[in-house]
Amino acid sequence: MNSEIKRIGVLTGGGDCPGLNAVIRAVVKTAINKYNLEVVGYLDGFGGLINNMAKKLTVASVSGILPRGGTILGTTNRDNPFKYPMIKDGERVYVDMSDHIMDNLKEMGVDALVVIGGDGSLSIAKEFCDKGLPVVGVPKTIDNDLSATDVTFGFDTALVTATEALDKLHTTAESHHRVMVLEVMGRYAGWIALHSGIAGGADVILIPEIPFEIENVCRKIKARKVQGKKFSIVVVAEGAKPLGGEMVVQKIIEDSADPIRLGGIGNVIGEQLEKCSGMETRVTVLGHLQRGGSPTPFDRLLGTRYGAHAVKILMEKKFGEMVSLRGTNIESVPIAEAVKVLRRVSPDSDIVFAAKSVGIGFGDE
Amino acid sequence: MNSEIKRIGVLTGGGDCPGLNAVIRAVVKTAINKYNLEVVGYLDGFGGLINNMAKKLTVASVSGILPRGGTILGTTNRDNPFKYPMIKDGERVYVDMSDHIMDNLKEMGVDALVVIGGDGSLSIAKEFCDKGLPVVGVPKTIDNDLSATDVTFGFDTALVTATEALDKLHTTAESHHRVMVLEVMGRYAGWIALHSGIAGGADVILIPEIPFEIENVCRKIKARKVQGKKFSIVVVAEGAKPLGGEMVVQKIIEDSADPIRLGGIGNVIGEQLEKCSGMETRVTVLGHLQRGGSPTPFDRLLGTRYGAHAVKILMEKKFGEMVSLRGTNIESVPIAEAVKVLRRVSPDSDIVFAAKSVGIGFGDE
Amino acid sequence: MNSEIKRIGVLTGGGDCPGLNAVIRAVVKTAINKYNLEVVGYLDGFGGLINNMAKKLTVASVSGILPRGGTILGTTNRDNPFKYPMIKDGERVYVDMSDHIMDNLKEMGVDALVVIGGDGSLSIAKEFCDKGLPVVGVPKTIDNDLSATDVTFGFDTALVTATEALDKLHTTAESHHRVMVLEVMGRYAGWIALHSGIAGGADVILIPEIPFEIENVCRKIKARKVQGKKFSIVVVAEGAKPLGGEMVVQKIIEDSADPIRLGGIGNVIGEQLEKCSGMETRVTVLGHLQRGGSPTPFDRLLGTRYGAHAVKILMEKKFGEMVSLRGTNIESVPIAEAVKVLRRVSPDSDIVFAAKSVGIGFGDE
Amino acid sequence: MNSEIKRIGVLTGGGDCPGLNAVIRAVVKTAINKYNLEVVGYLDGFGGLINNMAKKLTVASVSGILPRGGTILGTTNRDNPFKYPMIKDGERVYVDMSDHIMDNLKEMGVDALVVIGGDGSLSIAKEFCDKGLPVVGVPKTIDNDLSATDVTFGFDTALVTATEALDKLHTTAESHHRVMVLEVMGRYAGWIALHSGIAGGADVILIPEIPFEIENVCRKIKARKVQGKKFSIVVVAEGAKPLGGEMVVQKIIEDSADPIRLGGIGNVIGEQLEKCSGMETRVTVLGHLQRGGSPTPFDRLLGTRYGAHAVKILMEKKFGEMVSLRGTNIESVPIAEAVKVLRRVSPDSDIVFAAKSVGIGFGDE
Repeated sequence: MNSEIKRIGVLTGGGDCPGLNAVIRAVVKTAINKYNLEVVGYLDGFGGLINNMAKKLTVASVSGILPRGGTILGTTNRDNPFKYPMIKDGERVYVDMSDHIMDNLKEMGVDALVVIGGDGSLSIAKEFCDKGLPVVGVPKTIDNDLSATDVTFGFDTALVTATEALDKLHTTAESHHRVMVLEVMGRYAGWIALHSGIAGGADVILIPEIPFEIENVCRKIKARKVQGKKFSIVVVAEGAKPLGGEMVVQKIIEDSADPIRLGGIGNVIGEQLEKCSGMETRVTVLGHLQRGGSPTPFDRLLGTRYGAHAVKILMEKKFGEMVSLRGTNIESVPIAEAVKVLRRVSPDSDIVFAAKSVGIGFGDE
Repeated sequence: MNSEIKRIGVLTGGGDCPGLNAVIRAVVKTAINKYNLEVVGYLDGFGGLINNMAKKLTVASVSGILPRGGTILGTTNRDNPFKYPMIKDGERVYVDMSDHIMDNLKEMGVDALVVIGGDGSLSIAKEFCDKGLPVVGVPKTIDNDLSATDVTFGFDTALVTATEALDKLHTTAESHHRVMVLEVMGRYAGWIALHSGIAGGADVILIPEIPFEIENVCRKIKARKVQGKKFSIVVVAEGAKPLGGEMVVQKIIEDSADPIRLGGIGNVIGEQLEKCSGMETRVTVLGHLQRGGSPTPFDRLLGTRYGAHAVKILMEKKFGEMVSLRGTNIESVPIAEAVKVLRRVSPDSDIVFAAKSVGIGFGDE
Repeated sequence: MNSEIKRIGVLTGGGDCPGLNAVIRAVVKTAINKYNLEVVGYLDGFGGLINNMAKKLTVASVSGILPRGGTILGTTNRDNPFKYPMIKDGERVYVDMSDHIMDNLKEMGVDALVVIGGDGSLSIAKEFCDKGLPVVGVPKTIDNDLSATDVTFGFDTALVTATEALDKLHTTAESHHRVMVLEVMGRYAGWIALHSGIAGGADVILIPEIPFEIENVCRKIKARKVQGKKFSIVVVAEGAKPLGGEMVVQKIIEDSADPIRLGGIGNVIGEQLEKCSGMETRVTVLGHLQRGGSPTPFDRLLGTRYGAHAVKILMEKKFGEMVSLRGTNIESVPIAEAVKVLRRVSPDSDIVFAAKSVGIGFGDE
Repeated sequence: MNSEIKRIGVLTGGGDCPGLNAVIRAVVKTAINKYNLEVVGYLDGFGGLINNMAKKLTVASVSGILPRGGTILGTTNRDNPFKYPMIKDGERVYVDMSDHIMDNLKEMGVDALVVIGGDGSLSIAKEFCDKGLPVVGVPKTIDNDLSATDVTFGFDTALVTATEALDKLHTTAESHHRVMVLEVMGRYAGWIALHSGIAGGADVILIPEIPFEIENVCRKIKARKVQGKKFSIVVVAEGAKPLGGEMVVQKIIEDSADPIRLGGIGNVIGEQLEKCSGMETRVTVLGHLQRGGSPTPFDRLLGTRYGAHAVKILMEKKFGEMVSLRGTNIESVPIAEAVKVLRRVSPDSDIVFAAKSVGIGFGDE
């Protein structure tokens, strides 16, 4: 056992993600059952560290939270302690609160920290580690776009939500001979669109990694019509870009008769497809539904493994590292390396090969 | 048995609705198994009648369709045979195709018709009945707003979709201390909003039948904050109206800083609530997801009962009538009466009493 | 308002049923929000009344329980306070604890009681009412077999569980050319079997109300084989009986080569069908899965309406009555009448007509 | 392209598994779209090869089957073509039908075979390959117990079914203060029990890889009672064994008062736990429900990737190999190696560590 670490803090940062509670529960139970530690939960991400808002977590505190979405600790996308916004003399200034936090932690007897968060939160965790605080990380991204781990929790739940939406749109598209467009999350990486598109039987998948031309998408839809398939399903990642990029999108919006209907790339594409195919087209933006709900068994399990091993690597003094899944094993990697590289869809990957083989178009040809 | 009716036609009209296939299956199986009839399915609603697009339906044709959403016959919201749009001398004229259809039916030996559709389709069915065609109806409305029947199929499935969305939004709202607005269907009647709002634990439900004032909604959300509930869930029927109606909505859009984000009442309300409550607010428009997907057991059962009894009342020569559910029994009522009266939420009903008793606000006080 | 009732007790009795928490939540919120009452929850059914185990219930106590199965108050199938088993002089005697309970209630200042339970619990509730205690009831039966109300909460959830099981068995039956038997609940009434059987596309449904002959079931399965349908799905209510009843079942068990596999009617029928059809047959007993899980939106809504109106009729002094659903309205009826009559499937009902029309056999012909 | 292979056959062997249709669909679409091949589907496993029962598969044949459980080709656990049972002179003899099959294939112009199956089917595939037939394999095991691949399709769906069952049992266990035992699949490897047990919040998990002592399980349940947790959830793999193995199970059955209730290890354990804990205990055997139902998005995706790559490695002449998932990539491995080694749960693995850390007992201490 570790003679120095007796009380640890845990916090969740960044956007919501199904499985956060599974991680928290495993951190708390492992710390108490296995290593005889005390656990303090900080509320609302790094904001809780700054304002010293915390509560003691016991085994009873985490009872029953495994199947629940969200995080019992609260979270936020704001609040970087190294650049905390304050009003001084009527002006907004950014203050480094990290020393203040280090003092707070010492005062509360918190010896180490488990940070559950995305690349933003993990970068902050790394900075605290550099200041001498024992910190380990648990990676969190609904987009599954972190190269340092094969999968992140929450992704499978989002995938199920997106695929169920496609299953629902499918029958209506078929009955009404419509083009149905579904916009899903994925600003820089198209994993949700790619996986749900294949699983949901989409005809076209548009992702940031493969720039599309709207003419190619139209041709695909018309070709289906000729084959007697009088409907099409198009999945669009929110970060999908046409060849030529933003300027093209802007042009489309300006040319639009009804700008108020537009708002995201999904609506832009929907309007274009209706025009060029002459088919009724409907757009659905899945939005926050993808971040909520009870985590799938896969995500509950992965969250539990992550949480238990985060405490384990902490006790093994692997400070500055984060847990990660490689194949079937949990490992750990330095946060510094992990947050550097985005995991993006490779157009040459076996998944894209499979997608194209079953007839899915990406608008690139 | 009925000596005259030997071959019947069936068609589905209007918007998509989970359970249509269950009705079609029951019509076909009952006609063949029970009454030794032949069945012809017309494609794409009344359009199929006009263009004589049909296929013979056997027990094999409907095998496996019970759990599937959509309609194997196709459907459309257009195509009134009594006012069919055509281009004549370069101008659009509306032509009465009903005699043409009566001839077609006679030629194909189709003696009677089962029309599955909403008030539009049922009104057309009634007109054909008045022309001497034996017709019976099966009521269809996802909004459950038909006074002549206690429940319509498809509504329960839409309710599950909307409630699952609320369950998902709930955890994120709580974790992020947000106001979450969900816009659901219901142009003239707020049944989906009311039922899903109660089932999904909403804090505010806004429906067409109870005009709201945005100030009341804001006060409710702020009151929750004071009680330590740092989030709120608001369900809005697409037809919800503020006291003062359309003009108020128009005013809000004009005042908006970001009109492009707006589009429906959900977004309008979301913007207002963010302003007045000072809380992060997110809006989700559920849209077409509510019309799709595998029907719930309730809807499969109700669709099956409707379909079987539609053929039964046809054979009993109850022409011009439609099937309906009263309490636990299937009955039949004249279409003429049925399509006249909308079933709307009564502010004095026991459901609204229950909703208010558990603390749900309607923006009316 | 009522000047006499200031504090009410609530308890749940009998078997588990999804929606109990929805009722409790509505009782508590309605009592506090609407009528300014205090609420005490008794634990583990009438046992809590006997042993005076109770806790104060506030709005916070019931926060978040709406979507959760089970009951936060605990429940039990035992413990009739009028015939409470005790050991006296080494022998089991049955003691009337009701006066003791009346004293306890008075001492704790509990003026009235809401009893949520099946016919057993409601009969006890009625007896307390006869002793002068203001009591109202909320009916609970997963089997939906109470004639005094159109539907009871929990039934829809059980129906979904059973239908999902049938959907799963369907694909395997078809792939493997098997007979799949599913045993569901329903000791005296076959509602779950009937509704799930129709919704799940079963080929045969066996229920207590329609005695079956195994030869008829076999003939049906063989007829399907001849038609090229190389599999069959059979749903059996646990209380289904062959013509001739128990003796026939007993005979089958004695004749069986492998008595250890048998246990319920489902297994008995499975063995018979394997023998007579020559097809691989598999039996699944759904059991307790039908009583658990998050209640469906329908059950959450019905539970909420029941709970809110139970308090309402209590305040209206309708003592000795229970809430009930008639058509689309909540009403109230005397418990005394309600518990007398079982609601059973009528072989002449429109549902059985629909089932037979789509080709489902009941083993009666 | 490959000049020799112009027409391929595909078949599914062994037990049902969600995702089989996804594989078939991807094989057919990839063969036709990508490699311009013809595809023949053999019915009911190797039986179809023996009896030359086949049908041509087109893109239309596989339309709409992606989300459906089961296999459109049928399957069976019997029928080894190298040891095919026949009756000769009144006695059962086993005949080698492989030459007959090779002739059939040549006659039908089928140049190569894709075999989707478990270790039995894949071993047969290997034998055909040794006879000179170009064959590739797609591994299938609901138990996920194949060492040559990280995951197999169908496992995730089974996991969801088992976890949902645990979620349902949880609330009832808690309300009734019961011990709930769930028996799941896993004859030689406990993956379903382990994963679902962690995901479903079980208290005890019993698997073949970790022999248990019933006394340890009892002590665990009693310890929970002392801590105020008046219920327990026990997941048992069907192949779980007590220390001492089969003899102990046999002894328990002999000692049992009610042998008819027993049948599997789940019931045996349930009876023991009821005795030793003094708590009401209920046993549910999940059985065939685990093999059915619509595959999860994960399984649909994995099945699609497997199917597409099976055709790819066939065209790359990697005969005698099967597709496999390693980390995030699809690879291929020789069937000969793959079927030799079972993938079993290691008591020292990180998953078991995580399970024990959150307080789950395995009956081994």
